[in-house]
Amino acid sequence: MEEIKQVTHIDNVKLSDDKKSVVIIDQTQLPNRMVYLTLNQLEDCYEAILKLRVRGAPAIGIFAGYAMYVLSQQYADKPYDAFAAEFHRQKEYLNSSRPTAVNLSWALNRMEKVVAGNASSGVGEIVELLGRECVKIHEEDIAMCRKISEYGLSLLHEGDGILTHCNAGPLATSRYGTAIGPMLLGKEQGMNFHVFSDETRPLLQGARLTSFELQKAGVDVTLICDNMASIVMKNGWVNACFVGCDRIAANGDFANKIGTSGVAILAKHYGIPFYTLGPTSTIDMNCPTGDDIKIELRDPEEIKEKFYVEPMALKEVKCYNPAFDVTDHTLVTGIITEKGICYPPFTESLKKLFD
Amino acid sequence: MEEIKQVTHIDNVKLSDDKKSVVIIDQTQLPNRMVYLTLNQLEDCYEAILKLRVRGAPAIGIFAGYAMYVLSQQYADKPYDAFAAEFHRQKEYLNSSRPTAVNLSWALNRMEKVVAGNASSGVGEIVELLGRECVKIHEEDIAMCRKISEYGLSLLHEGDGILTHCNAGPLATSRYGTAIGPMLLGKEQGMNFHVFSDETRPLLQGARLTSFELQKAGVDVTLICDNMASIVMKNGWVNACFVGCDRIAANGDFANKIGTSGVAILAKHYGIPFYTLGPTSTIDMNCPTGDDIKIELRDPEEIKEKFYVEPMALKEVKCYNPAFDVTDHTLVTGIITEKGICYPPFTESLKKLFD
Repeated sequence: MEEIKQVTHIDNVKLSDDKKSVVIIDQTQLPNRMVYLTLNQLEDCYEAILKLRVRGAPAIGIFAGYAMYVLSQQYADKPYDAFAAEFHRQKEYLNSSRPTAVNLSWALNRMEKVVAGNASSGVGEIVELLGRECVKIHEEDIAMCRKISEYGLSLLHEGDGILTHCNAGPLATSRYGTAIGPMLLGKEQGMNFHVFSDETRPLLQGARLTSFELQKAGVDVTLICDNMASIVMKNGWVNACFVGCDRIAANGDFANKIGTSGVAILAKHYGIPFYTLGPTSTIDMNCPTGDDIKIELRDPEEIKEKFYVEPMALKEVKCYNPAFDVTDHTLVTGIITEKGICYPPFTESLKKLFD
Repeated sequence: MEEIKQVTHIDNVKLSDDKKSVVIIDQTQLPNRMVYLTLNQLEDCYEAILKLRVRGAPAIGIFAGYAMYVLSQQYADKPYDAFAAEFHRQKEYLNSSRPTAVNLSWALNRMEKVVAGNASSGVGEIVELLGRECVKIHEEDIAMCRKISEYGLSLLHEGDGILTHCNAGPLATSRYGTAIGPMLLGKEQGMNFHVFSDETRPLLQGARLTSFELQKAGVDVTLICDNMASIVMKNGWVNACFVGCDRIAANGDFANKIGTSGVAILAKHYGIPFYTLGPTSTIDMNCPTGDDIKIELRDPEEIKEKFYVEPMALKEVKCYNPAFDVTDHTLVTGIITEKGICYPPFTESLKKLFD
């Protein structure tokens, strides 16, 4: 059997050399410290997703694939039925860590299909196949990000200003990333852009991760608070908005980090094109509209306490802390996937992707 | 001569008992500590405005009035010309502390008129008159806030949801405040509202001050990050937006805390009425449109470092940190002043206020 290839381009998520652990950059520690975590326990993997140590829908999918492979080695001595049952139990548990991103369940289901589709093989062989499958998920993501970046770049011109929200770069995905992939790819080709990175409250992924990635890549980036997007657009500094997506409904509505819908409304007001970029695995054709997307509500302490020197509001003040919002398809100029750019009406253009 | 009356209703800004100092609540320490500062030096007064220890356009005006009175006592032994020159020098210096708010220069000019208009009086008498004038500025503000609150309340109904941005409550003004005055007045009259308070990055006045004031007054308040305004509106939870203003141009464009224009665009998108509330002293008929309003740019460290346990972005990342933005008059449903509610066309309705 061919040896499982290690993807080495980037290291936000990878297998350990002995393939018994999955190694991630703890994104909660960026930009101040580059800390690698070596994970091989179910609970630690669950916690890594829940606490956003690994985050970004595609990266979570890649991570979940590796995690299931790593964990499956630990009960590979069981007979097939018990193995498959344990696999299913662990998969369901990991799947419960974050409800909004479609890539998590997509990757987990894809791994489970390997188990289900090889019932007649030995468990040892199934584990080998699981190893290949998770590397394949990762390699496919790299290829997809490259294609998405190329399609996105085709919409940009030298010197353009681009506003992005949250983090859909290499850390959230693989290699180039999605929403900031076009800028990174363009930079490699000698182009210059001016990127405005929303800091993205409450967890500040734009400040901590996106501005970090772009700065390190030598791209001109300016960090702004989320509420400054309006003035930056009004100043005429933004030619396009590029954002990621966590789930795209069949009509083009899509869920992404909280605040995305606001950016889309501002862009429409100022007549600026607004694109979401993501792999077709993010499109959920079984989800008719954004109203069918469940929005995760998170800990109020993220708003009041996390990161701060001292509490920033009275302890008894109520907080509403949705992790995502849904951007209506009427606000979207185009959806950029690895298979091309979809334009309205999305009900038709998205469907064609799967024909 | 009648004794100078001390305004006692609230104490965000007041004269000390011996009238030789101005006493403020250091708003940068809220909500965690209630610290009073006793100020009687020009440099300390300047710093208090610059560092937002006293903030909110009306409160700055009230503070500046008291400060000029307190400081004037210290050089009351000078002959009139030298007194007037020193008064002018100190006034100009205080006026340079924050360029956007009109109330600061308005209050300072009003105080200087007392000096200029009483050249034939003794300097001791002028100081007495200055003392009366600054108390009058404060008392008038209280009366104005009460009227503004009444007009604002006339637009609300029991159970309404109201979204507000930044802080235009008692701490920023006097007594009831402007933008949250209607909710405080309504609460006194037994009405119940659900207020959504934008945290208002970068300095978090919504989290630290507005939610503090409303919570302490027993008003139902929910704190949200600025980028959550869109989802809260989409959820159908907001019946009206009430925000303050720092300067209103003759055509109804107005400057207010950065992010206000974004709230107005979202409100328009969702069909929610959007009002700004402020005294007529905020209206600058010499300023034709919002384009003529100078926007203060502040320290990038406010975005990256202030409040945080550790830096939230790479040291070398650029930040753009405007303190205010201008909301276009086409996004404004009404301007609520102490003289009534102005509706479009504002060029006419605002002008009528001054007829």
